[in-house]
Amino acid sequence: MSASSTNVTTRSTTSVDGRDLILVREFEASPDKLYRAWTEPALITQWFTPAPWSTAKAEVDVRPGGASVITMRSPEGTEFPNRGVFLEVVPSKKLVFTDAYTSAWMPSEKPFMTVTLTFEEIGAGRTRYTARVSHWTVEDREKHEQMGFHQGWPLATEQLAALVEQR
Amino acid sequence: MSASSTNVTTRSTTSVDGRDLILVREFEASPDKLYRAWTEPALITQWFTPAPWSTAKAEVDVRPGGASVITMRSPEGTEFPNRGVFLEVVPSKKLVFTDAYTSAWMPSEKPFMTVTLTFEEIGAGRTRYTARVSHWTVEDREKHEQMGFHQGWPLATEQLAALVEQR
Repeated sequence: MSASSTNVTTRSTTSVDGRDLILVREFEASPDKLYRAWTEPALITQWFTPAPWSTAKAEVDVRPGGASVITMRSPEGTEFPNRGVFLEVVPSKKLVFTDAYTSAWMPSEKPFMTVTLTFEEIGAGRTRYTARVSHWTVEDREKHEQMGFHQGWPLATEQLAALVEQR
Repeated sequence: MSASSTNVTTRSTTSVDGRDLILVREFEASPDKLYRAWTEPALITQWFTPAPWSTAKAEVDVRPGGASVITMRSPEGTEFPNRGVFLEVVPSKKLVFTDAYTSAWMPSEKPFMTVTLTFEEIGAGRTRYTARVSHWTVEDREKHEQMGFHQGWPLATEQLAALVEQR
């Protein structure tokens, strides 16, 4: 992304860095608006899951050690809860969570990923948003790619844009 | 342990609970003294590693997300660094750390355990100390036992007692 592209909304780009998958996008919205879309249940359910799937429910206890359950629903109506715990919370700036725990500090069945979100103000009411998805192994990073990371995350992120950029 | 044994110093007891290994001991010392023995490098090096091994160095950044490196030294002089990150810090009451990260929030090579320490005041200057060592799998819990958990942790804990109970 060019630093001079101040009037262009950048689409999601994804990249690979060892065990990490990284998504970057610039939004026509404030860091606070993005942070709220990630932390308020009534907003999370509007964008989190790529259509035609949907988000049935979001429960988030937004503090270090707080648990979250975001339940995705398939078009056939089957529900898939995603459990995690917040590791770091810096309002409007940064959120870190992992599926390595289901509550503080109960190990999950399988530690798969840790997600670090940063919301960086870049002027003119715009935000550079970075989602770094770190895995414990290269195999799990590859598995995540095979599960459709490079399709699913950008799709959800465009749904996020439609929510936070609406006037 | 009986609640009425107020004049008896309880030796370390260890037990197994699913994926967890648990060590309990009562100390003739305050919660604060035990907390300091776990968080001050000059104290950690005096008790952490069962003799004839020793603790070469302790670096601890005691805050959620803070990294720690405690280096154990074999009798032959080989050093083994143990890296981890603090997840929860409640001064004089509770400490939680894991080797699933080497710094905030870099996944380690292998998430093996999460340690939850509680320091509970039980009157007359005494403390009930509980170390719950949670693993992600039953296999890792068993491996930890085969590595000598039920010998090593009580030995280190007696060294901890010798330090904090000295008059």
